[in-house]
Amino acid sequence: MIDKLWKHVLTVREQSPLVHNITNFVVMNNTANALLAAGASPIMAHARPEIKQIVDIAGAVVINIGTPDEYWSDAMLVAAEHASSAGRPWILDPVGAGATSYRDELIQKLLAFRPDVIRGNASEIIALSTSNHAHTKGVDSTATSTEAKAIAKRTARQFQNIVCVSGAQDIITDGKKTAFIHNGHPLMTRITGMGCSATALIGAFSAVIENKFEATIAAMALLGIAGEISVKTAEGPGSFQVKILDKLYNITESEFTTHAKISIV
Amino acid sequence: MIDKLWKHVLTVREQSPLVHNITNFVVMNNTANALLAAGASPIMAHARPEIKQIVDIAGAVVINIGTPDEYWSDAMLVAAEHASSAGRPWILDPVGAGATSYRDELIQKLLAFRPDVIRGNASEIIALSTSNHAHTKGVDSTATSTEAKAIAKRTARQFQNIVCVSGAQDIITDGKKTAFIHNGHPLMTRITGMGCSATALIGAFSAVIENKFEATIAAMALLGIAGEISVKTAEGPGSFQVKILDKLYNITESEFTTHAKISIV
Amino acid sequence: MIDKLWKHVLTVREQSPLVHNITNFVVMNNTANALLAAGASPIMAHARPEIKQIVDIAGAVVINIGTPDEYWSDAMLVAAEHASSAGRPWILDPVGAGATSYRDELIQKLLAFRPDVIRGNASEIIALSTSNHAHTKGVDSTATSTEAKAIAKRTARQFQNIVCVSGAQDIITDGKKTAFIHNGHPLMTRITGMGCSATALIGAFSAVIENKFEATIAAMALLGIAGEISVKTAEGPGSFQVKILDKLYNITESEFTTHAKISIV
Repeated sequence: MIDKLWKHVLTVREQSPLVHNITNFVVMNNTANALLAAGASPIMAHARPEIKQIVDIAGAVVINIGTPDEYWSDAMLVAAEHASSAGRPWILDPVGAGATSYRDELIQKLLAFRPDVIRGNASEIIALSTSNHAHTKGVDSTATSTEAKAIAKRTARQFQNIVCVSGAQDIITDGKKTAFIHNGHPLMTRITGMGCSATALIGAFSAVIENKFEATIAAMALLGIAGEISVKTAEGPGSFQVKILDKLYNITESEFTTHAKISIV
Repeated sequence: MIDKLWKHVLTVREQSPLVHNITNFVVMNNTANALLAAGASPIMAHARPEIKQIVDIAGAVVINIGTPDEYWSDAMLVAAEHASSAGRPWILDPVGAGATSYRDELIQKLLAFRPDVIRGNASEIIALSTSNHAHTKGVDSTATSTEAKAIAKRTARQFQNIVCVSGAQDIITDGKKTAFIHNGHPLMTRITGMGCSATALIGAFSAVIENKFEATIAAMALLGIAGEISVKTAEGPGSFQVKILDKLYNITESEFTTHAKISIV
Repeated sequence: MIDKLWKHVLTVREQSPLVHNITNFVVMNNTANALLAAGASPIMAHARPEIKQIVDIAGAVVINIGTPDEYWSDAMLVAAEHASSAGRPWILDPVGAGATSYRDELIQKLLAFRPDVIRGNASEIIALSTSNHAHTKGVDSTATSTEAKAIAKRTARQFQNIVCVSGAQDIITDGKKTAFIHNGHPLMTRITGMGCSATALIGAFSAVIENKFEATIAAMALLGIAGEISVKTAEGPGSFQVKILDKLYNITESEFTTHAKISIV
């Protein structure tokens, strides 16, 4: 399995998929750089008159609701609907789910267009189902990823897609099989946009890998391992994020395979 | 006093306050990272339908008018009014005050909602009072902080709040007492968003420290000292900003107390 | 010629021109930092009520259509028209030209206000003329700069301005003379916003140097040389962009003159 995941990393580098991002203002720069470092080609575009044309040329669409407003929400809905009807894989990052009713309503509308993959922290994934009791503090999670496991599986079955709960342990499930990744480092939570970069990378992998369960595992493993290696020489969150970009770019097969801590049940 | 300020640094780390930022596009990423590095939890949100809910869950609100337009200005006014009426501390960063009449009018409307703290460079603080002669060049100051001292005190008395003029020497006043901080380094003016990070940190400290005069001094001292230490090993503004984030995160009590150069009169 | 270009670098540092940017969300932070590192003073402003006032105080205006929408497009047109009629130099970066009809229409409207300099990658410059067959993949070029040379010259003659095609070899032409710069490094394409930084630097140089052909060559050479020197000690795209900012700030005359590889025919 690890060998197969590494091949997926190489596939992204070789095919350099165009990833269309409608994302938040805070992380646009990191997200673009993370995609470029991993070998993908990012485009950010949100204008109503061009959204469908951008979706049409992209290999995948990433929708991240981190700083929504009426115009951007509308753009996200148009992109999601068009991606869905055109069979273009699209990924949802429900940033701050559970924090406001505005976000929750937007998320419900987006979910109706069936994202291929949903990635969030535990609080956000729990908040996707209105019947759950959500624990959220702004955009940071107060629930653990283990708590979110059962709900992730239920959500994946409901939408017949992949659900990824990132945290100390990443959980990726298609509703039947579940993968656990024990890579990464707590310092990743002291850098803004690590989750958003993860979602964007899932987009890059989903653009070129048919199996979205594997695409999601490969993307999450890549970022987690890059973080785990980079933290060893980082002096704090500033140098850490610089080193993560470096490592996304120069990670080797041996680094990837020796660090990967993945189990699938 | 220095010991008390260091305790405030620890309080931010321990309580990790949620800071709601309505800020400019240029610095959103730095601002979020500076808050995370200091131990706070940032959220950026500007959508009319969710602003009040975000203000309600936040410990403090930071309003920075760096890249205003009609939608964002309206959002700032709603947030300021709601923060003010809900007793939530809010901080104003009047970026580019004096540069255009549009900014000056927006600032006057925001001032009506009584910010707990105002932080700007000397030109900006001078420009707050229409009766002053402003010296501004875009968003960079052409006046010295000393020139702004008398006006800062007058402004603080007028709004019964804290006014902070950042510069080679930072001036913080409640209209009676005035603190002077001689930390920092001129290279900080060659990185975008240092002032905006300062304002956001004041927000974080104001969320958890009752005395806003002390909260503001602690935030400004933390950033100034982090800059002063970081510049020693920086090779230019790129590595400098990376090291400042590292130092905001890993600064020790001994580093803080031995570098702090603060006087209060 | 190299000596003259170095003097232009010093002129920017000494005069610190105010550069008004209406640019995209992805690169605003890099752009501001690149301008500050080179000694200029950036301001980002897009609000209809203040655009003309900002253009009036700026030394040059940079318009970059990377993430356009109706509001921002309108702001760009107002700024371009005002800059043009006020005789303020303005620079166009037609990001993603050829990718969507929306961008192409916006570009045609902007071109009517005669930018002093246009900088793009080969695909973008080719796409400026609707009669050309464009090769574009989102915002990344799939054409080579050599292919774009003839079209660049024709475009420069058509608009009586300077056209710059950036790539492995940068081409700068006024329609008669053509300069070729062989600096830079391929890793610069794995960092977002390098092209946008180039355009912003052209703005800074154009603000203080009368000869826009020389201003453009100096700006492109500065960034290319900074990249070429920085890559030697970079471990990947993360540390590379940090080092480029450092080098824009601390580059010496000897570094500039010994690295510059420029020919003019």
